[in-house]
Amino acid sequence: MGIQTLDTPAALIDAGRMRRNIERMQAHLDKPGVKFRPHVKTTKCRHVVDAQIAAGAQGITVSTLKEAEQFFAGGVRDIVYAVGMIPARLGQALALRRQGCDLKIVADNLHAAKAIADFGREQGERFEVWIEIDVDGHRSGIQPEDALLIDVGRVLVDGGMILGGVLAHAGSSYEYDTREALVKIAEQERSRTVRAAERLRAARLPCPVVSIGSTPTALSAETLEGVTEVRAGVYVMFDLVMHNVGVCALSEIALSVLATVIGHQEEKGWAIIDAGWMAMSRDRGTQRQARDFGYGLVCAEDSEVLGEYVVSAANQEHGIVSRLRTPDADIAKRFPIGTRLRILPNHACATGAQHPEYHAVGDDGSVQTWPRFYGW
Amino acid sequence: MGIQTLDTPAALIDAGRMRRNIERMQAHLDKPGVKFRPHVKTTKCRHVVDAQIAAGAQGITVSTLKEAEQFFAGGVRDIVYAVGMIPARLGQALALRRQGCDLKIVADNLHAAKAIADFGREQGERFEVWIEIDVDGHRSGIQPEDALLIDVGRVLVDGGMILGGVLAHAGSSYEYDTREALVKIAEQERSRTVRAAERLRAARLPCPVVSIGSTPTALSAETLEGVTEVRAGVYVMFDLVMHNVGVCALSEIALSVLATVIGHQEEKGWAIIDAGWMAMSRDRGTQRQARDFGYGLVCAEDSEVLGEYVVSAANQEHGIVSRLRTPDADIAKRFPIGTRLRILPNHACATGAQHPEYHAVGDDGSVQTWPRFYGW
Repeated sequence: MGIQTLDTPAALIDAGRMRRNIERMQAHLDKPGVKFRPHVKTTKCRHVVDAQIAAGAQGITVSTLKEAEQFFAGGVRDIVYAVGMIPARLGQALALRRQGCDLKIVADNLHAAKAIADFGREQGERFEVWIEIDVDGHRSGIQPEDALLIDVGRVLVDGGMILGGVLAHAGSSYEYDTREALVKIAEQERSRTVRAAERLRAARLPCPVVSIGSTPTALSAETLEGVTEVRAGVYVMFDLVMHNVGVCALSEIALSVLATVIGHQEEKGWAIIDAGWMAMSRDRGTQRQARDFGYGLVCAEDSEVLGEYVVSAANQEHGIVSRLRTPDADIAKRFPIGTRLRILPNHACATGAQHPEYHAVGDDGSVQTWPRFYGW
Repeated sequence: MGIQTLDTPAALIDAGRMRRNIERMQAHLDKPGVKFRPHVKTTKCRHVVDAQIAAGAQGITVSTLKEAEQFFAGGVRDIVYAVGMIPARLGQALALRRQGCDLKIVADNLHAAKAIADFGREQGERFEVWIEIDVDGHRSGIQPEDALLIDVGRVLVDGGMILGGVLAHAGSSYEYDTREALVKIAEQERSRTVRAAERLRAARLPCPVVSIGSTPTALSAETLEGVTEVRAGVYVMFDLVMHNVGVCALSEIALSVLATVIGHQEEKGWAIIDAGWMAMSRDRGTQRQARDFGYGLVCAEDSEVLGEYVVSAANQEHGIVSRLRTPDADIAKRFPIGTRLRILPNHACATGAQHPEYHAVGDDGSVQTWPRFYGW
């Protein structure tokens, strides 16, 4: 059973590419001897995570407590929930820890720290908490020099919780596309997070873990001094955004969407396919990058990149394939109705989320179904 | 059990607003006496579709054969699959018809028409086929004056199939925002589709059904002469894109995402919420409209619109709430951690698709869970 028998649209994983992506990142981080903790929000798929752990990953990162519950049920104990904890979710976190999950939670403010400590004492549970550090003004976190850092650490420790470490994510690394800029943001992520750890330790607070990471910075850091673990998610699939950032070749992108040509508008040079935004996601991450791939880059069914054809527009279940720059007057002959194409996505996390399962294609062309979950 | 007990993020339907949206469209189309066939791709939810049918809808429109299968299993017989048929899907369509589903399929080219006729004859099945008409150069379809229209009709009829009618969708109607422009595009959709039907009839080909529609044109048409049925999808929920188009008030938007404040960046005027693009979708449909709402417009938990607060940026599970124009220095006081907000979405079809279920909130505040499906 090869991909010829699959209905379209379908999310394909090139299992060989995925394996090489996993090995590349693992080897890259084994060298400096830091722990690697992949972010599983990219795939929410047990088969993928099993492969990451088999290759040497130690623990996982999750973006929802549902991910924690699902992967803990699948046998993963060491989990960090990397979204700021709120009081309403503490009961769910407690239940996981009571079942034996080594769940770490995150805080970046006094309100949350106090709530965690109060709830933990009330329940007789020493939650392990990591403090989120803001290294690039991108999203959440406490700035390394902010007095609040020590206050939050103290509330946790004085409240009887385990202060496990600091955690940062240089989300702005996606905005760069030169080696020089990536090295610089990676060093900024590292040095600011290490600085936060040093300040906590100088205040006689414990800080064993220094956790940083994003796919671009993980692959660009020239030193990881002071860092104990790295996190990254999208590296396992890669995508067009990462290609534009400069951290992968097109031939390393492991996720694609299989689609079928269903019609044409010949005078416009359009082929219509059955992969619209429902199959590709609405992610337009390459829109502001050097090369805008629309809703995806068109490849042949066998993965060969076909030059300049992209999904230039998308409705719910219709995609429009056209050639960049000069319309292709022969598009109906080039891609007759029934032609099957593979579309490389802008953003593997967003595209995967649209599909109930992946179809993993082995080097021998065989196909396995790998379910993934969604929701909260 | 009210919404106070729901985990966030969660997709909420205001059941009263939904009911009024359904009644408004049904009454609007009952007046001229045309049949109304809602597009169920917006919600993929049996509870919503049951309400549409109870109010008077006759049959449904679907964007995938999975939708056809699911709603046929739920008791709906009269279904049009409004995406161009391809040979590979004919077996699935046949199976539905053999089970008693009155499934209509669509073609806009000779290749598909011949394949349908050949397969139908082979299987002893008279498929009912509607020809898709291009009324605005937006996507698929045959132009009304194109000689191909008659050729496709003849291939179907000579091949023993039922030529059921013509179908068009003025997708470009989403691009307008004045009453005058909407009336004009609605009339263009109507007149061109009717013209295609007249050409078929003049060629002695049958064309009983003249099916048109989109939410903006359905609500803007000044005459429906020659039209036998209207289709529309998003009207059942409405959204910010439709508000910008000018066909609904903010207070008519029935879908929202319930979210919780999880942190702040006070000096930037940001509140961080737990609804990112996974909960809102990546749809940025208001980006090129007169009023850009980012990833959504912020309301209080009780639905009150809070002025100028939008979700200005989104990561997978983080949204950034900020005030348009002038940052709010008091945002941490205004929206303390734990505050629950309702976010109105850009695009109800895209946002709904991110959620395994809706939580329908009745006028009395009670909440029901309405599952929805996804995938192909």
